[in-house]
Amino acid sequence: MKKDILSNRRKLHSIVFESETTAGKTFDIILLILILASVIIVSLETVTYLRRAYLPLFQKLEWAFTILFTLEYLLRIYSSPRPLKYIFSFFGLVDLFSIIPTYLSLFVIGAQYFLIVRVLRLLRIARIFKLTHFINEGKVLTRALQASFTKIAVFLGTVLLLVVIIGSMMFVIEGAASGFTSIPKSIYWTIVTLTTVGYGDIAPQTPLGQILASCVMIMGYGIIAVPTGIVTVEMTRSEKQLTNSEVCPNCQLVGHVPGAKYCYNCGYLLNESA
Amino acid sequence: MKKDILSNRRKLHSIVFESETTAGKTFDIILLILILASVIIVSLETVTYLRRAYLPLFQKLEWAFTILFTLEYLLRIYSSPRPLKYIFSFFGLVDLFSIIPTYLSLFVIGAQYFLIVRVLRLLRIARIFKLTHFINEGKVLTRALQASFTKIAVFLGTVLLLVVIIGSMMFVIEGAASGFTSIPKSIYWTIVTLTTVGYGDIAPQTPLGQILASCVMIMGYGIIAVPTGIVTVEMTRSEKQLTNSEVCPNCQLVGHVPGAKYCYNCGYLLNESA
Amino acid sequence: MKKDILSNRRKLHSIVFESETTAGKTFDIILLILILASVIIVSLETVTYLRRAYLPLFQKLEWAFTILFTLEYLLRIYSSPRPLKYIFSFFGLVDLFSIIPTYLSLFVIGAQYFLIVRVLRLLRIARIFKLTHFINEGKVLTRALQASFTKIAVFLGTVLLLVVIIGSMMFVIEGAASGFTSIPKSIYWTIVTLTTVGYGDIAPQTPLGQILASCVMIMGYGIIAVPTGIVTVEMTRSEKQLTNSEVCPNCQLVGHVPGAKYCYNCGYLLNESA
Amino acid sequence: MKKDILSNRRKLHSIVFESETTAGKTFDIILLILILASVIIVSLETVTYLRRAYLPLFQKLEWAFTILFTLEYLLRIYSSPRPLKYIFSFFGLVDLFSIIPTYLSLFVIGAQYFLIVRVLRLLRIARIFKLTHFINEGKVLTRALQASFTKIAVFLGTVLLLVVIIGSMMFVIEGAASGFTSIPKSIYWTIVTLTTVGYGDIAPQTPLGQILASCVMIMGYGIIAVPTGIVTVEMTRSEKQLTNSEVCPNCQLVGHVPGAKYCYNCGYLLNESA
Repeated sequence: MKKDILSNRRKLHSIVFESETTAGKTFDIILLILILASVIIVSLETVTYLRRAYLPLFQKLEWAFTILFTLEYLLRIYSSPRPLKYIFSFFGLVDLFSIIPTYLSLFVIGAQYFLIVRVLRLLRIARIFKLTHFINEGKVLTRALQASFTKIAVFLGTVLLLVVIIGSMMFVIEGAASGFTSIPKSIYWTIVTLTTVGYGDIAPQTPLGQILASCVMIMGYGIIAVPTGIVTVEMTRSEKQLTNSEVCPNCQLVGHVPGAKYCYNCGYLLNESA
Repeated sequence: MKKDILSNRRKLHSIVFESETTAGKTFDIILLILILASVIIVSLETVTYLRRAYLPLFQKLEWAFTILFTLEYLLRIYSSPRPLKYIFSFFGLVDLFSIIPTYLSLFVIGAQYFLIVRVLRLLRIARIFKLTHFINEGKVLTRALQASFTKIAVFLGTVLLLVVIIGSMMFVIEGAASGFTSIPKSIYWTIVTLTTVGYGDIAPQTPLGQILASCVMIMGYGIIAVPTGIVTVEMTRSEKQLTNSEVCPNCQLVGHVPGAKYCYNCGYLLNESA
Repeated sequence: MKKDILSNRRKLHSIVFESETTAGKTFDIILLILILASVIIVSLETVTYLRRAYLPLFQKLEWAFTILFTLEYLLRIYSSPRPLKYIFSFFGLVDLFSIIPTYLSLFVIGAQYFLIVRVLRLLRIARIFKLTHFINEGKVLTRALQASFTKIAVFLGTVLLLVVIIGSMMFVIEGAASGFTSIPKSIYWTIVTLTTVGYGDIAPQTPLGQILASCVMIMGYGIIAVPTGIVTVEMTRSEKQLTNSEVCPNCQLVGHVPGAKYCYNCGYLLNESA
Repeated sequence: MKKDILSNRRKLHSIVFESETTAGKTFDIILLILILASVIIVSLETVTYLRRAYLPLFQKLEWAFTILFTLEYLLRIYSSPRPLKYIFSFFGLVDLFSIIPTYLSLFVIGAQYFLIVRVLRLLRIARIFKLTHFINEGKVLTRALQASFTKIAVFLGTVLLLVVIIGSMMFVIEGAASGFTSIPKSIYWTIVTLTTVGYGDIAPQTPLGQILASCVMIMGYGIIAVPTGIVTVEMTRSEKQLTNSEVCPNCQLVGHVPGAKYCYNCGYLLNESA
């Protein structure tokens, strides 16, 4: 009897937490659809004319999703070999926080501000992708970004320094008349300009301000080359590390095609076990 | 007699479908000019003051183009060795859809909405380019984009996740007063900002909103480095593979290191004269 | 006597057309300053309140520049061994067109429209740089851009095709109410959005239009990776061609440091004549 | 006694100027926090409603920061082995200028315009980072940017030439009615457009202006590839040079190919153990 429960639990675990079996895959796909549908409903609920017309429908759907996600949460706790570890893991907390807001809305007024929390359900999609082959591609990207982290930090630090100094200069040059009402706002404008976003809600009016703004734009236009260069160099290296770093035992050459069996230079058999 | 028709048909086929002969090239160039002229006419027809002044002219030209394209369509069917295969091919359907709207406008009111379909004539230009040497360059680009497809998909997925979460946060922070009237609209704003487009039709007004917006901009400014890095790495690889396009005479594999003497797969001597 | 004139002419030529001698360098620097000053005066003349205050001064300066440039033009003709060749060369025509507008303004009313022509004086700066060491760097850039010309043409062609089709779709979806008054204007909006410029003078208002706009932005954000990738690959190649493509005569290896005397692998003397 | 003072001074120097010891690190961190806090206070002081509410608090804090920075400045002079060299060094002047404005505000009216100078305190952060391991990453970036300086100068020169010519053309085409009131303003608009910032405070209204604007945008979209390509190529090279940092024991040269056995310059065997 107890053995049955254990084996059931193990089976459930493979369905709920893994995606090797057909049942596991089906479970993941249904969950993916439910999460996306639930986030779309949360989004549409905030559109005024849709909320007016379909509020009861939205609420019913929201409860349906919450109950399904609650069931899933309980299943995960039940099938987990160490339930507490799951509950306090990152994804365990995300799972919990994605169902709490709806229950809270029964007791607390102003539940609108829990919307963000409900949208965090999207993070649960990350778990599903974690199980798939997408993760390998993600690894190359992540490794490249991690390797270039210090370089990007130095770069960002320099940019922020620049942005504060230029922002202060624009505040003095343009002043409140052109919308540069304070240094923080001027810094905001400088970021908007340097990143080439350019809303146009604040724009320099004086000739001197426009000259400085032109310099900021051209700088921003050139500066974007730096993170791009950093990431490209890191990705090239990260790619190379994934390829073949083998040395030919005969002629000591490197640079073989990934998966190569024979040396391109001397024809020597590279890897006996391959 | 029947032989004559067959040889005529083959000749027509070489003119209409190919571009090796002088006649075929002339046909392609005339067709290219007609397509461009027809799309320019469709565009200009939508400009109010031009439509008021020249509507009869536009209609006459449109009928002229339609009749010419209809003739071309019939010629293609006639000269095709397997007409049905052509009719249901991608370009066959594009050819058909590029003449239907004008005929439909005789019977259906509101033909304006078929404009899009008429603009799709542009797709037919793709066929002409398919025959030229431009296609090789296109292949390098396409191969690079295809090879980086999964990486770009992971990247886009992460960006979309981010965009939905940030959009929801901005909706809660800024609210309807600043134009963030719903989550979908806030998501739209986030995309406008992250991609550094920055219309300025919606812009954050609260200090907290502007701080979050600044983070989004700097993120967007850095994130653009990722697809650029991906494509550059893939293009470098794609270029390299085209560099040494030698086929191993023993195992028929390509993709050897430039200057390789031995096949990396079977160790066969690649180039005796090297 | 005639010999004297000839030698004078040759001397003048070395001053006016070359920059090896001290006199030639001084001439170039004075000319550079005059051109920049003249273009700045032309620019400032268009600022309403400056024109009102200083019009007589501007006109005097303009005549001074014109007379100096005329003298220079005559000197160039005189010192040129084949005057006609110079007059009808690219820079000869630029030199002529940079002095004509001021003389024409004596006879023709509406000389304001010759302003552009006066600004073309800037092109003469290109000649000065042509003589300096900057030209080498320019060559690497130009070679890289030329080599990637066909690829960029294919890329631009595809982008234009896309822009026309998306522009037409936006025209049908949004219509005149949101400012998409005609297909040409919608195409203009699509270019503004795809290139991430985003003026905001026209912006989509309908949900469907905003969804399509979001797709255009994300596409534009990703598409920018393509020209960057193309140019980076070409520049890497162009750089490499400038470096050492020598093969070691002893071990047949390539990839030596530029200017290397000895093979990094076997220590063999690479280039006897070096 | 004198020895004690000397050793004290040396100890102070290691705390104030270096960051190897625990005391030195603590000093740096406290200084970093003080600088950031002081700049944040300067920024917030410019926000109208905060200044109204908390002006006395801001002034007290400002005096507190100024006195602390003055103490630090005196300490630096005292502990410096050659005080005059420190006082007239770059960071010595920055230290001085970051305390002067507050003292000046006692005597001079209009101290608001010294704000910029107070923000320059941020530059002092650069000194702290100079002592940390971040500096290595910064070196790679700086070296890459320096190496590509001439190329970027040629590129920027060409862009500025283009910007002036296009700006003048837009002035003639659009005229004052669309906001292109002068050539300098038109040049400003061209920079705003070419860098894809796109405020939208000035936007072309005529069809011809919009066509030219479209060309500028597509150019700007493509041109951004050039600095990115330059920096990427330089960074790749700069990375490679750091990879093999071996010095030839015979001729003291660096920059060998990774894995090189012999010096490329003198043919000396580089690494016996390799």
